[in-house]
Amino acid sequence: MKYYTLKWCADHLSLIDQRYLPTKIAYFKAYNYQDVIYAIKEMVIRGAPAIGAAAAFGYYLAYKEAISKNENSNSTFLSLAVNELKKARPTAVNLSWALEKMDNLAQTFSAPFSKQALNELLQAAENIIIADQKVNKKIGAFGQEIVPPKGSILTHCNAGSLATCGYGTALGVIRSAFYAHKKITVFCDETRPRLQGAKITAFELSQEGIPHYLITEGTAAFMIAQGKIDLCIVGADRIAKNGDTANKIGTFMLATICKLANVPFFVAAPLSTIDLNTADGTKIPIEERSSTELTQLDGLQIAPLLTKAYNPAFDVTEAEKISGIITEVGILRPPFTQSIAQAFHKKQCNSE
Amino acid sequence: MKYYTLKWCADHLSLIDQRYLPTKIAYFKAYNYQDVIYAIKEMVIRGAPAIGAAAAFGYYLAYKEAISKNENSNSTFLSLAVNELKKARPTAVNLSWALEKMDNLAQTFSAPFSKQALNELLQAAENIIIADQKVNKKIGAFGQEIVPPKGSILTHCNAGSLATCGYGTALGVIRSAFYAHKKITVFCDETRPRLQGAKITAFELSQEGIPHYLITEGTAAFMIAQGKIDLCIVGADRIAKNGDTANKIGTFMLATICKLANVPFFVAAPLSTIDLNTADGTKIPIEERSSTELTQLDGLQIAPLLTKAYNPAFDVTEAEKISGIITEVGILRPPFTQSIAQAFHKKQCNSE
Repeated sequence: MKYYTLKWCADHLSLIDQRYLPTKIAYFKAYNYQDVIYAIKEMVIRGAPAIGAAAAFGYYLAYKEAISKNENSNSTFLSLAVNELKKARPTAVNLSWALEKMDNLAQTFSAPFSKQALNELLQAAENIIIADQKVNKKIGAFGQEIVPPKGSILTHCNAGSLATCGYGTALGVIRSAFYAHKKITVFCDETRPRLQGAKITAFELSQEGIPHYLITEGTAAFMIAQGKIDLCIVGADRIAKNGDTANKIGTFMLATICKLANVPFFVAAPLSTIDLNTADGTKIPIEERSSTELTQLDGLQIAPLLTKAYNPAFDVTEAEKISGIITEVGILRPPFTQSIAQAFHKKQCNSE
Repeated sequence: MKYYTLKWCADHLSLIDQRYLPTKIAYFKAYNYQDVIYAIKEMVIRGAPAIGAAAAFGYYLAYKEAISKNENSNSTFLSLAVNELKKARPTAVNLSWALEKMDNLAQTFSAPFSKQALNELLQAAENIIIADQKVNKKIGAFGQEIVPPKGSILTHCNAGSLATCGYGTALGVIRSAFYAHKKITVFCDETRPRLQGAKITAFELSQEGIPHYLITEGTAAFMIAQGKIDLCIVGADRIAKNGDTANKIGTFMLATICKLANVPFFVAAPLSTIDLNTADGTKIPIEERSSTELTQLDGLQIAPLLTKAYNPAFDVTEAEKISGIITEVGILRPPFTQSIAQAFHKKQCNSE
């Protein structure tokens, strides 16, 4: 692969700057936790698993900065920094999941704010990258089983290599199916307003040589109804305990049309995207982003200056519209309240 | 109003060039029928009723050119020109409706290809503009009755003043409701790929001072399901004899979600958009437009260079998802096969 999502480089976190894709491959360097917050907020990096990994490095950078500060105020500085990191984007649960993981590790140090503690935290952040890549390949292996030997797959937004630490979730499944020589054509919808489908998913598919067409979201709906789509796979930003799934705005619409047309609709996501503390979709906070994401495009004014946009970044798809959730421990099937609980139980047993 | 859609100016047809809106108001001059074809194909002008009117002037310009040619080949030249005009865009039926109207008039001249015939044809084309404006105001008057005194209206694409010869169909209804002091907020979806919602509908709403928000199509679907939309009104490019309606891609999706959520979904269109020769939606030809409409935006590359798009410009909404069709003779209600037949019968009686 000729690019990477994020990588630690001696003294900084290097992130592919997704604001410039597909026309330019450039990297953003984060030297402190504030840079990481900027990268997450401004969508230099996006995609729930990738945001989680970036936040882990943000934690490490804040910890490092805390050491350089007055010793007594280390903890205060760190907790304020972590709090800021947590608020960078509200919907993807992987962000708080990763920060909690780092915080739990930090609690165990016998010599906190020491060089050794710092090294262990860096290792832990790097392990999140490695683990995420492994998890994605498992998701790909489980998921490709449900891909027909020949057919059309619809995907929304980008749940690919660039939304994760590599390989991808929904796009990982597509990748695995392609590597297994399945004759697939991918229809990637452009995904307004930020065009992650056009700019990022199409970029990944092009790089891999996977046959694909770009379509509008309205075309996606009509194609589903016309029987031109065999399967729809998307990623997730947060999955509630009952299976309700928050994902990029537009997902709800596709799932609804798939349900009506009896087209299988799958969510591919690591268990870290499932939030057992969120009972159902109504409890998931939906981020509202800037009006200019719709009124401008790459700096170009595309709406009247006085027009304001209402711009929720995510929507919630009800569990009953989801055929299955493809995770690293297998495909969870409805009823999800039960299958999710079982998956976490299994995972806990395996790690004991 | 500070702008017009199209107007005859001594020796040419002047059309607002919709490719530059909302940032620039510029006019395109068509001096011959080829210019008119260019304007229709390249979407200098768009919207079914406006295309119809432009085509009528195209007919006149071809007729005028025929006169300047060798006398014996007048008819051949004209019929070739009309055929080319007819093919400029395949879905909107108003185009062939207007050409047929002009052709029928031409057949009645005792002295064809005379100066008098030419004058009458110009008058007929100008009458199409006047009649369309009248029709739209009637649609507005009938339509505003179904608008609640206070509420949120969703519209798709542009069925406004700029899609017609003035006032608009769907947006004409919204205009009339606003003039009747109804407390409405319009949610106009941006309408990919050509952004007629963002660029044209939002422009018209801004100019009128009608409260509005721009949203993505995915947001529109989610808002409908959340009960945040009270009414959806769209225009039409062709309505079949049974009420099935071809309109801008994305319409099918909105109508489907409205139906599920019990939100009234209305189509506003003149009778000239109803094609009695088309039995149902499956018989409506759907135009497929250039890949670059998705891969580029105003000349900016927004997808990888190797990525191709599949870009149907319209979709078909089944009659059973439509609450009513607002026309100049009243609101047609289901079953449409019956109400459409009655409307045409009534119109014929009135004109006799």
